Amino acid sequence: MNYKIDNLQYCKWNREVFKINREANLDAVHVTVVYHEDYDEFLKRIEEWKKHFDENSDLIFHGKDYKDIEKAKKENKTSIFFGFQNCSPIEDNINLVEKVHEQGCRFMQLTYNNQSLLATGCYEKNDSGVTNFGKEVIKEMNRVGIVVDMSHSAEKSTFDAIEISEKPIAITHANPSFWYDAKRNKSKELLKALSESGGMLGLSLYPHHLLDNSNCSLENFCEMTAKVAEIMGVENIGIGSDLCLNQPDSVVEWMRNGTWTKTKNFGEGTKKNSGFPKQPEWFEDARGFYNLENGLKKTGFSENEVNGILGNNWFNFYKEINK
Amino acid sequence: MNYKIDNLQYCKWNREVFKINREANLDAVHVTVVYHEDYDEFLKRIEEWKKHFDENSDLIFHGKDYKDIEKAKKENKTSIFFGFQNCSPIEDNINLVEKVHEQGCRFMQLTYNNQSLLATGCYEKNDSGVTNFGKEVIKEMNRVGIVVDMSHSAEKSTFDAIEISEKPIAITHANPSFWYDAKRNKSKELLKALSESGGMLGLSLYPHHLLDNSNCSLENFCEMTAKVAEIMGVENIGIGSDLCLNQPDSVVEWMRNGTWTKTKNFGEGTKKNSGFPKQPEWFEDARGFYNLENGLKKTGFSENEVNGILGNNWFNFYKEINK
Repeated sequence: MNYKIDNLQYCKWNREVFKINREANLDAVHVTVVYHEDYDEFLKRIEEWKKHFDENSDLIFHGKDYKDIEKAKKENKTSIFFGFQNCSPIEDNINLVEKVHEQGCRFMQLTYNNQSLLATGCYEKNDSGVTNFGKEVIKEMNRVGIVVDMSHSAEKSTFDAIEISEKPIAITHANPSFWYDAKRNKSKELLKALSESGGMLGLSLYPHHLLDNSNCSLENFCEMTAKVAEIMGVENIGIGSDLCLNQPDSVVEWMRNGTWTKTKNFGEGTKKNSGFPKQPEWFEDARGFYNLENGLKKTGFSENEVNGILGNNWFNFYKEINK
Repeated sequence: MNYKIDNLQYCKWNREVFKINREANLDAVHVTVVYHEDYDEFLKRIEEWKKHFDENSDLIFHGKDYKDIEKAKKENKTSIFFGFQNCSPIEDNINLVEKVHEQGCRFMQLTYNNQSLLATGCYEKNDSGVTNFGKEVIKEMNRVGIVVDMSHSAEKSTFDAIEISEKPIAITHANPSFWYDAKRNKSKELLKALSESGGMLGLSLYPHHLLDNSNCSLENFCEMTAKVAEIMGVENIGIGSDLCLNQPDSVVEWMRNGTWTKTKNFGEGTKKNSGFPKQPEWFEDARGFYNLENGLKKTGFSENEVNGILGNNWFNFYKEINK
């Protein structure tokens, strides 16, 4: 059985997006439910998702573990897995880790760009690694079953998380820095350590993580994938598209600035180019998975390897962490 | 005019304690109103203080700036200044800095032992310094008039805070590490940088910061004070006793553990000696200021210098930061 999984999307959700994901044949999508929301605000997002599930029960349902991906495949639906891009919902309280898991959280980034209470983000000048509280939280995430996601974290913090976590961790959406040296992209050494620990990298289709940005070619992206496979092994690679369909630019502004500054931080953008960037033509939405399939095959990947990258590897990871 | 100021107490407040502080002739006390409380919990603490002010208006009132210290002296009362030992009440929101100032906050520690969103605490393994959010918050604290307090912070973070803050900062309660090498005590280099920037050190009477702990002698404490005066200049030294009168041991447990761990952290204590330590005989409560007065004189300080250490230096600092 082959599964198709996009392990990171943060769209402005509506029936149209869920339909597109079905057209792309996605059996599972890991969706970002919060960035900087605290616990109470997170509960409100969950209410919104309950409404989505009610209103679109022919297309989507709430996924809790890998069996729901199997069920989705059987029912021609997309299972939706909840994740956080920052650890804000657990506030400063270790007991909230179990609570957010009960509400469906399955992935949590320890940081989003800036320093958090758990670890350092990739936009800080110095990286002190996983903190005292962070160590306790990783232990608790391991216990309840939330994957440590270090996509927006700084390097030492990520090495620390790989070492501290007793379960494999994930970088759900990023690319290698040898290909394109963005702050958010990851070093060879880190990717190697990630794969050696059984961790996964979700390759990102977000233009700020791509060589030539919105003009990145499919061929170039697939060649990069082949190089990453040499470093990590092909079975540790998946897709985490980072698609932000329909989101207004006010959302990317909020993602970057939250409530931490009175000035304006442009993050990966610039003052002139501050909004969401234009997707590459061959990946305007999840239907780009078909282009990826062709592109990866042309690059020399076997059918089996392509199926791994487009979903089976993530499926195996979900299965492994549920053991 | 001479003022007596204790620039850090965290007692279990009641009329008895306010009376003792009057017997000690304290014109001002900087009190810790919160450790790990969030904004809403902080507002509850404020309500409790309003009750204290109502019920003990013959002994205390809420101090907002140095003029209230002058007023307290005139009326034979103690002015109470609010401070935080952690930055929890501002959560992740820069706009709350102004809000907590409106409620009376005049001192805020950027960290309490562990990493915070603003800086690194002295119990972390690595210190990455003041964070992106921390820089913004210091700017805002400078603007509204809250003193940056680095008593529980790690060294690089404290150097950073001294450099970043446009107003002098304070270490309201700590001692030098050359005298007693506790994690909470500070290096010569740091104390020198603090005084060169116009900052203040409040010497602590908390046994875990004292040579020989509860058995520390008055003479030894005063000799240490003389050595600190050589490094910092006598005018940058005051008292921040860190008195925790009447607090049950459950409180020190909470101070150390907050909600960040499911295990038990003993902080400056040990498993066998986990509660609040016994105060030295010569400083069981604020009336120990009289013993300090005698001890400092015996050590060779002039009357003027002693008056500076026991309150005038803090008074001048309050005046300076209100300019």
